[in-house]
Amino acid sequence: MSVLIVGSTGLDDIETLQSKVYRVMGGSAFYASVAASFFCPTRLVGIVGDDLPQEHLNFLKSRKIDLSGLQIVKGEKTFHWSGIYEENFSKRRTISLSLNVFEKFNPRLNDRFRETAYIFLANIDPHLQLSVLNQLRSPRLVVGDTMNHWIFDKKEKVTELMQRVDIMILNDEEVKDYTGESSLWKAGQKILKIGPRFVIIKKGEHGAVMLGKNSVFFAPAFPVENVCDPTGAGDVFAGSFTAYLARRNNFSWTNLKKAVIYGTVMASLNVEKFSVTALKNINFKLIQNRFKFLKKNTAF
Amino acid sequence: MSVLIVGSTGLDDIETLQSKVYRVMGGSAFYASVAASFFCPTRLVGIVGDDLPQEHLNFLKSRKIDLSGLQIVKGEKTFHWSGIYEENFSKRRTISLSLNVFEKFNPRLNDRFRETAYIFLANIDPHLQLSVLNQLRSPRLVVGDTMNHWIFDKKEKVTELMQRVDIMILNDEEVKDYTGESSLWKAGQKILKIGPRFVIIKKGEHGAVMLGKNSVFFAPAFPVENVCDPTGAGDVFAGSFTAYLARRNNFSWTNLKKAVIYGTVMASLNVEKFSVTALKNINFKLIQNRFKFLKKNTAF
Repeated sequence: MSVLIVGSTGLDDIETLQSKVYRVMGGSAFYASVAASFFCPTRLVGIVGDDLPQEHLNFLKSRKIDLSGLQIVKGEKTFHWSGIYEENFSKRRTISLSLNVFEKFNPRLNDRFRETAYIFLANIDPHLQLSVLNQLRSPRLVVGDTMNHWIFDKKEKVTELMQRVDIMILNDEEVKDYTGESSLWKAGQKILKIGPRFVIIKKGEHGAVMLGKNSVFFAPAFPVENVCDPTGAGDVFAGSFTAYLARRNNFSWTNLKKAVIYGTVMASLNVEKFSVTALKNINFKLIQNRFKFLKKNTAF
Repeated sequence: MSVLIVGSTGLDDIETLQSKVYRVMGGSAFYASVAASFFCPTRLVGIVGDDLPQEHLNFLKSRKIDLSGLQIVKGEKTFHWSGIYEENFSKRRTISLSLNVFEKFNPRLNDRFRETAYIFLANIDPHLQLSVLNQLRSPRLVVGDTMNHWIFDKKEKVTELMQRVDIMILNDEEVKDYTGESSLWKAGQKILKIGPRFVIIKKGEHGAVMLGKNSVFFAPAFPVENVCDPTGAGDVFAGSFTAYLARRNNFSWTNLKKAVIYGTVMASLNVEKFSVTALKNINFKLIQNRFKFLKKNTAF
């Protein structure tokens, strides 16, 4: 099966203690789509200006990502974010943010895209995520993501999203901010009561927890020795997660757990280089090796 | 086999947001011994004054702990610590600390104790831990613990301890303080180079990681819904860990991993009530249930 991914598509300037890069591929949907393309045919919905470097488009095409839903608006500039990581990646500061053409983003799915069964609503305004949901004809599995900004500014819309997705993916801070609960365990239960069948709480270097009404899965993190750029790790996780389930066309508990591990592995690979660069040079054998490493080293 | 546990033995006053208790059983060796007694015959070495409430002694005896190494000094007062937990247990502040009789602690093992094969050197002055090591005749497995205080004040002695133990147990902060390394993964490798065959890094609600030269185990935490008192969780973990290995008289990698999980389970039970109170009302079936819960919910 295919996966449909809707989210932000932009260009980033990223500075770390070690280095700085300009106008690299950024945005939740770009990260998620590149990662998803390792698992199943991937359909991308987004908007960019005509300043998006051709090499980025070429890379997306080389991953065989269906770009028929990527609007390229002439005379407009692409969404642009500039940020800096401080204190060994524990702090991220936005230097500048220009929505540019993204301000006009109003995703309209073509007929083929509306029929997609597996959907990942990557982080964008929840209003737009809901608009996409309304255009789907027969989704089998909808996975949703968001960020603190929307939890603070548009909590009601985020709640509406949670009521309508099958699986909600959040990080530990977002879960605490949304629920006001300091125990992740209790916070997860609160979110399940809102509607999603499963909630996945990402804890960065401490792995992830997936909770269902009567089920739980504790997933480890993959130990990355040298983090280069953590941008988009959550998007890569969620894109891979959803795409793995689409590949299997089955979301049994066993497959959900494996999907969490594939998401973990892909995120671990991606943070080793800037932007999505690391994903340019990997193959499925490398992915499988990390999957096996985690399987072996959590069993007891 | 039996386990020998040497460490601090005292009385605590503990205050949390919810409640306050006075003169409860405290100290690394008391916590570790009570926990260990669920797995194998336990030998305790420590020192107290004659003010130690009889009910505490009775509880230790009810757990069949060998108290022939517990000096009770007439006319002296027991080590006393008073502390308060703030900000939902994320902060612990010491209100007062009186070493009392503990100032005179100079552990001398009797002949029987010197023959013990499995040893847990719970947190005390590393100088005393090394003195105990020198008295052992044929230890099969020595497990060591310490705390930030000794890492800052007596780093050389802590290093000497690490060179001589088989397994070193530290929490994430201690590992970072000792190595100056922010990546736990790299910090663990640094400690392995000092000498121990394995290092276990406890990460509280994020579980634990056990590292060997060519092996790693990622262990989950047990999700505790209501933490009452986290005091001694690390001691309970380490005491149970060592005692499980003594029970099996075998420290294969498989058993080491199981020992980490039993340590995790015991710590999760213990934090649900003040001091060691929770361990007064548990049985091995409850321990096994939590062990099975973790096994089931980490497998993929």
